[in-house]
Amino acid sequence: MKIVIIGSGNLATNLSLNILKTGHKIVQVISRTAENAEKLAKQLNCSHSNDIGQVQEADLYIIATNDDAIKTVAHHKQLTNKLIVHTSGTTNIDVLSGNSDKFGVIYPLQTFKKDVFVSFSELPIFVEASDPTTLEKLVNLSKSLSTNVYNYNSSQRLSLHLIAVFVNNFTNHIFHISQKIAEQQNIDFEIFTPLIETTFEKIINSNPTEIQTGPARRKDYQIINKHLEFLKESNDSYEKIYETLSKSIDKYYN
Amino acid sequence: MKIVIIGSGNLATNLSLNILKTGHKIVQVISRTAENAEKLAKQLNCSHSNDIGQVQEADLYIIATNDDAIKTVAHHKQLTNKLIVHTSGTTNIDVLSGNSDKFGVIYPLQTFKKDVFVSFSELPIFVEASDPTTLEKLVNLSKSLSTNVYNYNSSQRLSLHLIAVFVNNFTNHIFHISQKIAEQQNIDFEIFTPLIETTFEKIINSNPTEIQTGPARRKDYQIINKHLEFLKESNDSYEKIYETLSKSIDKYYN
Repeated sequence: MKIVIIGSGNLATNLSLNILKTGHKIVQVISRTAENAEKLAKQLNCSHSNDIGQVQEADLYIIATNDDAIKTVAHHKQLTNKLIVHTSGTTNIDVLSGNSDKFGVIYPLQTFKKDVFVSFSELPIFVEASDPTTLEKLVNLSKSLSTNVYNYNSSQRLSLHLIAVFVNNFTNHIFHISQKIAEQQNIDFEIFTPLIETTFEKIINSNPTEIQTGPARRKDYQIINKHLEFLKESNDSYEKIYETLSKSIDKYYN
Repeated sequence: MKIVIIGSGNLATNLSLNILKTGHKIVQVISRTAENAEKLAKQLNCSHSNDIGQVQEADLYIIATNDDAIKTVAHHKQLTNKLIVHTSGTTNIDVLSGNSDKFGVIYPLQTFKKDVFVSFSELPIFVEASDPTTLEKLVNLSKSLSTNVYNYNSSQRLSLHLIAVFVNNFTNHIFHISQKIAEQQNIDFEIFTPLIETTFEKIINSNPTEIQTGPARRKDYQIINKHLEFLKESNDSYEKIYETLSKSIDKYYN
């Protein structure tokens, strides 16, 4: 297939670099930011433009933009009756309908950064399509990328993305906070390495519900209050997060 | 040293099993729950009692009980003028003063479960004492347990414990929630394995502040609202946690 990539962000970059390895041909990168379009096109050895009006002829148009740009791009007159897909976990497939009757979704479940290449070969990829023929095309493309391809509808995909936010984004923010508190208190964060390693190892190999420990689990309100008092003096957001998570733990293990 | 362990929980069990390997002698386990006292004493090959009045003569008394029991235990008449330590991250050393003038704290930074033995050999252990002679004794004992022994005061220890709650307890609860949502939606949690592995690997090898991704980081309020709507229908606590963490991310990357 000849493919046009619309977007040049973290996902667009990693997806197109993986497609490059499959034998499919990427012919063009379109991105609002000319500089980003050029940079990605260079890596893909294809043409580029910052104007969707200049989009080239292709078999598939992948819209890997921010979610709020998907609908506008999909309804551009240059894409009328073209095969278009988006790559969003949260956006319903329906936003693509109207301008074309062949469309779909290819959603790779991973966190990406532009400058770090992630191989798709074992990533779970979730595909949805307007019709069986399109589904087959998109599944075939996805199978050339990864061994783990699933057919999920928009509502299932929304829950996937929501869980991914907890697993990745929120876990990462918890560690951001931990490091900030350590910095404030002049504590070398390296001290926590054994605890972090045990934490991750236990989460992977045990059932988090069963291995929960800590003051909220033990309903030790004296400690919880000391911690909240400490946080009140340093950061409102942290205090609120501590309180909300502790209440949730306390409530679950009632 | 001849040592009495007071307590028979997760920390008491792991600490005493590690002490057993150092050449110091544990002579007795005291625990309110006779059954637990007996079980731990069996592993340590020592005597046991559920009555602090029956405590034996020893060189050191380690109070590894719940935090709210420390003060009462420390002030028992049988422990008058004895060398006593507690093992709590959050409790000030001061609660031990009054009944004795030689006391201290030995705080191992790790999460424990009774039935899983954790070697202390590389754990950071934080020691505090009433006076230099006691400090030396406690540091020596701790160095026989681990190569990483630090002298921290009560206020530094409070921040350590607070950070440990974020790193371990809250991370674990985030995964508890993720699994519960996956269960509700009939999604096999195994699907998230590549994402979880990347998440943990990135947190360990990068700076969480720099690698933050997700809808709150991108200020994609459309997605955030869809997720909140979804959670509103399934679980109040989860909705509140999603909102609080997203607001904190949004605020930081302003």
